[in-house]
Amino acid sequence: MLEVAYTPIGIVHSPFRNPEGTPIQSVVAWDTEAVVEIFPEYAEGLKDLDEFSHIYILFHLHLARGKPLTVIPFLDTKPHGVFATRSPARPNSIGLSVVMLEKITDNILYIKNIDILDGSPVLDIKPYISQVDAFETLKNGWFGENIYKMDQQKDDGRFK
Amino acid sequence: MLEVAYTPIGIVHSPFRNPEGTPIQSVVAWDTEAVVEIFPEYAEGLKDLDEFSHIYILFHLHLARGKPLTVIPFLDTKPHGVFATRSPARPNSIGLSVVMLEKITDNILYIKNIDILDGSPVLDIKPYISQVDAFETLKNGWFGENIYKMDQQKDDGRFK
Repeated sequence: MLEVAYTPIGIVHSPFRNPEGTPIQSVVAWDTEAVVEIFPEYAEGLKDLDEFSHIYILFHLHLARGKPLTVIPFLDTKPHGVFATRSPARPNSIGLSVVMLEKITDNILYIKNIDILDGSPVLDIKPYISQVDAFETLKNGWFGENIYKMDQQKDDGRFK
Repeated sequence: MLEVAYTPIGIVHSPFRNPEGTPIQSVVAWDTEAVVEIFPEYAEGLKDLDEFSHIYILFHLHLARGKPLTVIPFLDTKPHGVFATRSPARPNSIGLSVVMLEKITDNILYIKNIDILDGSPVLDIKPYISQVDAFETLKNGWFGENIYKMDQQKDDGRFK
C-alpha cells in the first residue's frame, strides 16, 4: 500500500528534552506544563477549541528509533506484540495524548499533564469529549497487573 | 517543517462503503461489526492484543477531501475551527476510533461498534485502557449542547 504523507501543523515545547525521565502517560504527568505552538497558517482552525477542557494531541514520535514488532514495554519485563503496547517505537510512530487545555492565546495552546517530548511535530488536534471518548474497559491485558507501577516508572530511553 | 510519511499496516473492511449514512462516532455505531485486516508482515505485532477489550484504531480518512480550517460539523449548524471538531476533512486527515475487540484470528481483528469507512488504510493499533485513556471533561464546547443529536445524525457526505 502506498505511503501516506502528513505535514506537521505545529510543534510541542515541553520540559522533556530527552526520552529518559519523561512520564510514560499523560495521566501520571501531574501538573506538567507545556505549550503547543500551532503554526500561524493553521491558527484559524483553533477557533472555539478553548471551550473544551481536554484535547487529543496526535504527534510524531520523532526520537523513537526502529519499527520493532515485539517490545518489552516500560511497565513489564516480558515481551509483547508492539500493537498491544504504547511503545513509542512502532511501525508508524504516531503518538496520542489526552491533555488538559488551560487556555489559547493566538496560535499558542497552554496545556497541562503532558507526556510529550520537546520538539515533537504535531499532526492533529481534536477535542476530547467524555461522552464519546471515555469507555470502561473489561479486559486490560498485561497492563492490568502492572498499572500500579505507572506513576513510578519513567521513560528509560530504551526506544530512542 | 518536513513531511512525515507512514506506511499503512492494514485495511478496514466495514459495511460502510460511502460516507453518507455512516455513524459519526463509534459510541453510536451500536453492534456494527467489521474486520481489520493487518497485513501478514505485521501480524507478529498483534501478540497479546486479544487480552484487551477495547483498542484505538488510527487510520487515514481516505475519502475526506480538502483541508478546511473552518467547518460546519455534522452536529451543528454553525462554523467552528476544524481542530475544535472531529470533521474527517482536516489538514492531516488522521482518524481515531475506540472500538470493541471481539477476537483475533491470525492477522484478522474482529471488532464491534465501528464508525470507519470500508477500505480505510490503518496506520496504528494501540490498546485502550480506562485508567489511562478515560477522562472526565469539564467543558465540552459546542458539542455539549448538540450531543443529543449524535445517535440520529449520520454522515451526510459533506466532507467527501
